[in-house]
Amino acid sequence: MSTYVLVHGAWHTGRELEPVAELVKAAGHKAFTPTIRGNRPGDPKTNGLDEAIQSIIDFLAASNLKNVILVGHSYGGMIITGVADRIPKHIRRLVYWNAFVPNDGESVYDMLPEQYVELFAAIAAERGDGCVVLPFQIWREAFINDVDLDTAQRAYDMLNPHPIKTLSDKISLKTNPAEIAVAKSYVNCTEDISLPHHYPWHPRLSQKLGLFRLVQVSGSHELCFSNPARLAQAMMDAGRD
Amino acid sequence: MSTYVLVHGAWHTGRELEPVAELVKAAGHKAFTPTIRGNRPGDPKTNGLDEAIQSIIDFLAASNLKNVILVGHSYGGMIITGVADRIPKHIRRLVYWNAFVPNDGESVYDMLPEQYVELFAAIAAERGDGCVVLPFQIWREAFINDVDLDTAQRAYDMLNPHPIKTLSDKISLKTNPAEIAVAKSYVNCTEDISLPHHYPWHPRLSQKLGLFRLVQVSGSHELCFSNPARLAQAMMDAGRD
Amino acid sequence: MSTYVLVHGAWHTGRELEPVAELVKAAGHKAFTPTIRGNRPGDPKTNGLDEAIQSIIDFLAASNLKNVILVGHSYGGMIITGVADRIPKHIRRLVYWNAFVPNDGESVYDMLPEQYVELFAAIAAERGDGCVVLPFQIWREAFINDVDLDTAQRAYDMLNPHPIKTLSDKISLKTNPAEIAVAKSYVNCTEDISLPHHYPWHPRLSQKLGLFRLVQVSGSHELCFSNPARLAQAMMDAGRD
Repeated sequence: MSTYVLVHGAWHTGRELEPVAELVKAAGHKAFTPTIRGNRPGDPKTNGLDEAIQSIIDFLAASNLKNVILVGHSYGGMIITGVADRIPKHIRRLVYWNAFVPNDGESVYDMLPEQYVELFAAIAAERGDGCVVLPFQIWREAFINDVDLDTAQRAYDMLNPHPIKTLSDKISLKTNPAEIAVAKSYVNCTEDISLPHHYPWHPRLSQKLGLFRLVQVSGSHELCFSNPARLAQAMMDAGRD
Repeated sequence: MSTYVLVHGAWHTGRELEPVAELVKAAGHKAFTPTIRGNRPGDPKTNGLDEAIQSIIDFLAASNLKNVILVGHSYGGMIITGVADRIPKHIRRLVYWNAFVPNDGESVYDMLPEQYVELFAAIAAERGDGCVVLPFQIWREAFINDVDLDTAQRAYDMLNPHPIKTLSDKISLKTNPAEIAVAKSYVNCTEDISLPHHYPWHPRLSQKLGLFRLVQVSGSHELCFSNPARLAQAMMDAGRD
Repeated sequence: MSTYVLVHGAWHTGRELEPVAELVKAAGHKAFTPTIRGNRPGDPKTNGLDEAIQSIIDFLAASNLKNVILVGHSYGGMIITGVADRIPKHIRRLVYWNAFVPNDGESVYDMLPEQYVELFAAIAAERGDGCVVLPFQIWREAFINDVDLDTAQRAYDMLNPHPIKTLSDKISLKTNPAEIAVAKSYVNCTEDISLPHHYPWHPRLSQKLGLFRLVQVSGSHELCFSNPARLAQAMMDAGRD
């Protein structure tokens, strides 16, 4: 019996990962789906990456969770890297699921294609509230390309505006992921083109982990909506010793 | 209910796509499998790319087809790109299935490895009739690597000599695919080595589409012979809104 | 009915491929699993690549095997390339399964990432018996990432120290694989990260075969342990005419 903590990506909350967590629990594990500070309803949108990371450290402490298999999706890769750097002795394994893998001093922006950086800046400038949202057409074609239009729309309606400062903030790490003394896995959804395949999640970012275990499954960036059961199995294949 | 028009590749006719079209129709859609000018029995083999593109525009007009999901396979990618450039308002979505994606001024030859260009030129020179055929061994190993020998041979026997001028003609486009105001998808068969994987269909050519939806399925370049049902499903996953 | 000869990789013997061979036999073929000289119990560990290649040639001669589908796994790719170069008329097809593809004058070391070369040299230096072993953590995460820990441990316990000279010896070939007049296939397990995916088996090494047939299946480098049935089917799909 292991303890899984699933950390969502930008625009999401922990709620969207609950169906996955339920399946992990049904397999005999504990599973938690906290929401990162900045993505909780009512959070100030001026939050940066440090506060986001700290909010998950606080959650683990408040819940008294140890020996944790810490899973991060997308932007959540920044969070789990920061958590493991600060409290490595509480982490049994890091599982990156199509997630950013930062070295010390890197931001999400540093790992994004230039077009996304420009697009997000333009959207945030127009909104003027410190947040960025994804245009629906990009969401539908490049993030959730493996479902029908209704499912894509329903999932889109669950998203929340994401504080853009967390994407430009550079992470501060004592130890880069390749050198951190925690086991690591990478779950790669093979039809995930939220980062284009000529500038991909895997192996471009995964290789920064040094020695890691690869698990691959078919699916888009948003497998939590399109196939929670497949995702839960992949997480457990990635998370076991 | 949507309208699918499936445009075949070099050496093929619409007939080889009929089993796929039948499955698309069984799912409640309309589906058509025209043969490109140059590949119809009796066509003069001096036809170039312009006449080939025009023949599909003529087919759509004669059949009064609008709001079309236009699917192109391989060389058919040249055709659907040209059609969408000339009559964009009749096209609902372009679906490239392991297909060439040309920008203005590009030919198939410009996207082929040099060895193919040289091989095709040598074969056409020896034939002297303006056509190229595929050597069986290349067909069997690199085009239809996912079937037994008998199936490979039967499929080979259906092929027709292809007018080589259509491969060297450079396409003339008002708008490159990335900028055209039509939705786009790319179906990638993951064992398709008709273009070698170090110089692949996806993402090398697909990325020229700009924003597109990716659908991937297992199979060779000739999934129409090896698994029409899997191909039909992939086309519909790619073609839906 | 065909004759398959399965040539294992470094640290293995033929015994670990017997479950695969049984399934190939159950499909109506002959199948053999010789052990390469250097990996047999009691072999002197000073053996080099030439003796290793010769031992499989000797096995084929002693067993009077002709028209052989010769399958090589990993380091076994060196062996089958050498065998086919020396007795091409006895080989019907070469099947490389996540295997090294050497040109004349190349060693395994020449195709490995620098980190592995350094690691192996350090391990062999410490052992002082001319052999290298794989650290368990690398085995578990990068070689057999698709099973549970118990299976990984049981498989690890079957491995034998591998004579390091066979990895640094440069092969001597009359004809490079791309030019040899024998049919060729490559079986690629898509989650095999024993070579990292930014420096992969396929297409980096497979493309050295020239014209070849690709078969891909899900699985790690050690599919012989994790799914012998899937591997047997892939071998037969790769080995048929």
